[in-house]
Amino acid sequence: MRIVDLINKKKYGEKLTKEEIDFIVLGYTKGEVPDYQMSALLMAIYFQGMDKEETSNLTDAFVRSGDTVDLSAIEGIKVDKHSTGGVGDKISLIVTPLVASCGIPVAKMSGRGLGHTGGTVDKLESIEGFKIELTSEEFVQNVNAHKMAIVGQSGDLTPADKKIYALRDVTGTIDSIPLIASSIMSKKIASGADAIVLDVKVGSGAFMKSLEDARMLARTMVDIGSHLGRKTVAVITNMDQPLGHEVGNANEIREAIEVLKGNGAEDETEVAMTIASYMAVLGGAYKTVDEAHTFFDKLIQSGEAIEKLKTFVEIQGGNPDMIEHPEKLPVASKHIEVKADLEGYVSGFDAEKVGISAMMLGAGRQKKEDPIDYAAGISLKKKIGDHVNLGDVLCVLHTNAAETFEAEKMVRAAFAFSAKKPEPVKYIYEIVE
Amino acid sequence: MRIVDLINKKKYGEKLTKEEIDFIVLGYTKGEVPDYQMSALLMAIYFQGMDKEETSNLTDAFVRSGDTVDLSAIEGIKVDKHSTGGVGDKISLIVTPLVASCGIPVAKMSGRGLGHTGGTVDKLESIEGFKIELTSEEFVQNVNAHKMAIVGQSGDLTPADKKIYALRDVTGTIDSIPLIASSIMSKKIASGADAIVLDVKVGSGAFMKSLEDARMLARTMVDIGSHLGRKTVAVITNMDQPLGHEVGNANEIREAIEVLKGNGAEDETEVAMTIASYMAVLGGAYKTVDEAHTFFDKLIQSGEAIEKLKTFVEIQGGNPDMIEHPEKLPVASKHIEVKADLEGYVSGFDAEKVGISAMMLGAGRQKKEDPIDYAAGISLKKKIGDHVNLGDVLCVLHTNAAETFEAEKMVRAAFAFSAKKPEPVKYIYEIVE
Repeated sequence: MRIVDLINKKKYGEKLTKEEIDFIVLGYTKGEVPDYQMSALLMAIYFQGMDKEETSNLTDAFVRSGDTVDLSAIEGIKVDKHSTGGVGDKISLIVTPLVASCGIPVAKMSGRGLGHTGGTVDKLESIEGFKIELTSEEFVQNVNAHKMAIVGQSGDLTPADKKIYALRDVTGTIDSIPLIASSIMSKKIASGADAIVLDVKVGSGAFMKSLEDARMLARTMVDIGSHLGRKTVAVITNMDQPLGHEVGNANEIREAIEVLKGNGAEDETEVAMTIASYMAVLGGAYKTVDEAHTFFDKLIQSGEAIEKLKTFVEIQGGNPDMIEHPEKLPVASKHIEVKADLEGYVSGFDAEKVGISAMMLGAGRQKKEDPIDYAAGISLKKKIGDHVNLGDVLCVLHTNAAETFEAEKMVRAAFAFSAKKPEPVKYIYEIVE
Repeated sequence: MRIVDLINKKKYGEKLTKEEIDFIVLGYTKGEVPDYQMSALLMAIYFQGMDKEETSNLTDAFVRSGDTVDLSAIEGIKVDKHSTGGVGDKISLIVTPLVASCGIPVAKMSGRGLGHTGGTVDKLESIEGFKIELTSEEFVQNVNAHKMAIVGQSGDLTPADKKIYALRDVTGTIDSIPLIASSIMSKKIASGADAIVLDVKVGSGAFMKSLEDARMLARTMVDIGSHLGRKTVAVITNMDQPLGHEVGNANEIREAIEVLKGNGAEDETEVAMTIASYMAVLGGAYKTVDEAHTFFDKLIQSGEAIEKLKTFVEIQGGNPDMIEHPEKLPVASKHIEVKADLEGYVSGFDAEKVGISAMMLGAGRQKKEDPIDYAAGISLKKKIGDHVNLGDVLCVLHTNAAETFEAEKMVRAAFAFSAKKPEPVKYIYEIVE
């Protein structure tokens, strides 16, 4: 087999076999296939695509390129969730205690934030004492005893995908649906998931800007799942504006607590409940999504949901008092109100700009090694459809930073206004299964 | 400027500016742009193409990447020719004395053969004493005095093209018309040509397999020429079978002599006369191709053409007696007749196989550093349209090699037969100007 022949094959729109994909991916991981051949092939894939079987084989090759997490010591169907990345996305914090409450093991690996998107690990670390590094034994024990644990990524999972992703980043081959889909699915499968609920974001703050693209990405990932024996459902959700009102770390924990108490924002609550319900169904706890939804409603009303979050924090070494008294979570020294300089309706957001502004305030990282200020963030006071009078507070910036001029300018530019009230926003577009 | 943005630009089908193309090409030549970004861009160009202006700017960047030959000391319009590469192509040997005879300077750089195609330099070196390395002074002096000189390639011409070609070879990006066209044209322009006649081959033995592709390549090159101020004409010629009857080195010199004496094969004579006539017109010696053609006919009939070839050989240090007595050119020790094992008509050729067979017999090189046997080659006795009886000689293999089994098998496989007489072959399809 010669790589150049395989590049030509894909270039002419032919299908690559499992053996050929293995040859390419495993060869590349070992350094036997040079970057310049891989990048030419990636560009050919961008133009010619890959069918279900090729994309599944690519995913499988990524999984086999490195370590895989062995969750066999955990009883039950391990259901994982994944979001394609948004701003103010605290869904994992909400669904973990909910799903665990119906007896389904949530054994989750999460990442840190980079650029304009936050990471679940950073948010959890804003809770005093919370330990994101668990030994394998602690992890398995927590999940078996309490049905939930979240750890930071460890081990050498899907090194082929990591190496290829870095190459894609500098060769203009990021926006290829089969490459995005196989990258996401390989990480979930290598992490030991038996079933997966995907939150595919679409809109100004998401990587997928059109519903058509989001649908195609969702379909591709669901097909990979079914091809590789992992029950997979994708929920296509709106990311034309940040989810909920809080963007940051400690303030996102506070907002998650509100949702689990039944006082959450409408969009966030609906998205979280839908994802949790599909996880419950895939895990076998309920036959229908409606039944699961009803169970979660009751769990919230009875106060059990918030109790379960406290347990979650406690078993990972965190101080549950911070859940009971969220005001004890880190608070910034400055709270700057950004006020409207016109009258009208909020008609849209550049959600990415909100994320970047939060990053500038200290809530995120520009580079991997940057430190984080857990207290920093943004509270949105107006969202799409809200009427705004001159001088109304659009949002509040929380920060300990000396200089906030650029962040304020950035967040101001994130708001779009119109004279007419815009159409109501849909929170969930559709389910792909 | 970031290379990744330029890759994306081309990927999305946008046009690259002159500055952007310079940034890429000159950066790549200096090693500042890595191979993996260049190969991704080349693949994007394969899919999205380049327009006239982009292709001309690419050609110009290739030219400016290295040395250029200064022919300003030579009087008159320097007309060059280039063939896209075929088997048995001895046209340069024929047109050089013809065109020089009408006072137009032919100051040519030629290459050596590799793989299944021969090179003019190798053919000339089969003449005793012929010197392919001339000093700049000798070169200019010969052209000014006798209007003709052929030298081997020297200097660091179009290093960007050389580096990119090597990358294309291993990344499946050879067959892109803008890339092929700019590669060819940049070499001709860097060699100092004022006007160029292109012999674009089409057929089984050529890189372009369809007339449509050949036409597009011809059009692209003619457009580059006119964009960069070089009058350019392309002649699209048939390469469904080798040109003439001889494939090799000394035997091709013998066949060129026959054409210049008026006894040449019909196809070879027609292609050579057409190309020479267009060169004469571009050089300003004649107003029309017909007038030029008539002049060349007379030149051949009067014996002046063959005398001019003798002069050409002599002024480059070669023994003109070998032109007078072609039997003195190298002769092989073995002449193996390949006989027909069926009856019918020759209906087609895999001309590339004929070239490979000749290479195996010693007439060509597999690798750059391989030696050449000037006496080796193939004489075709039957061509498309000829009737063949059982036992008729299809071709004769000339060689000094001990083992000829594989070469014989290869050349036998090059012939295709049919029961019905095939349609007559066209030698020249069209002229693009």
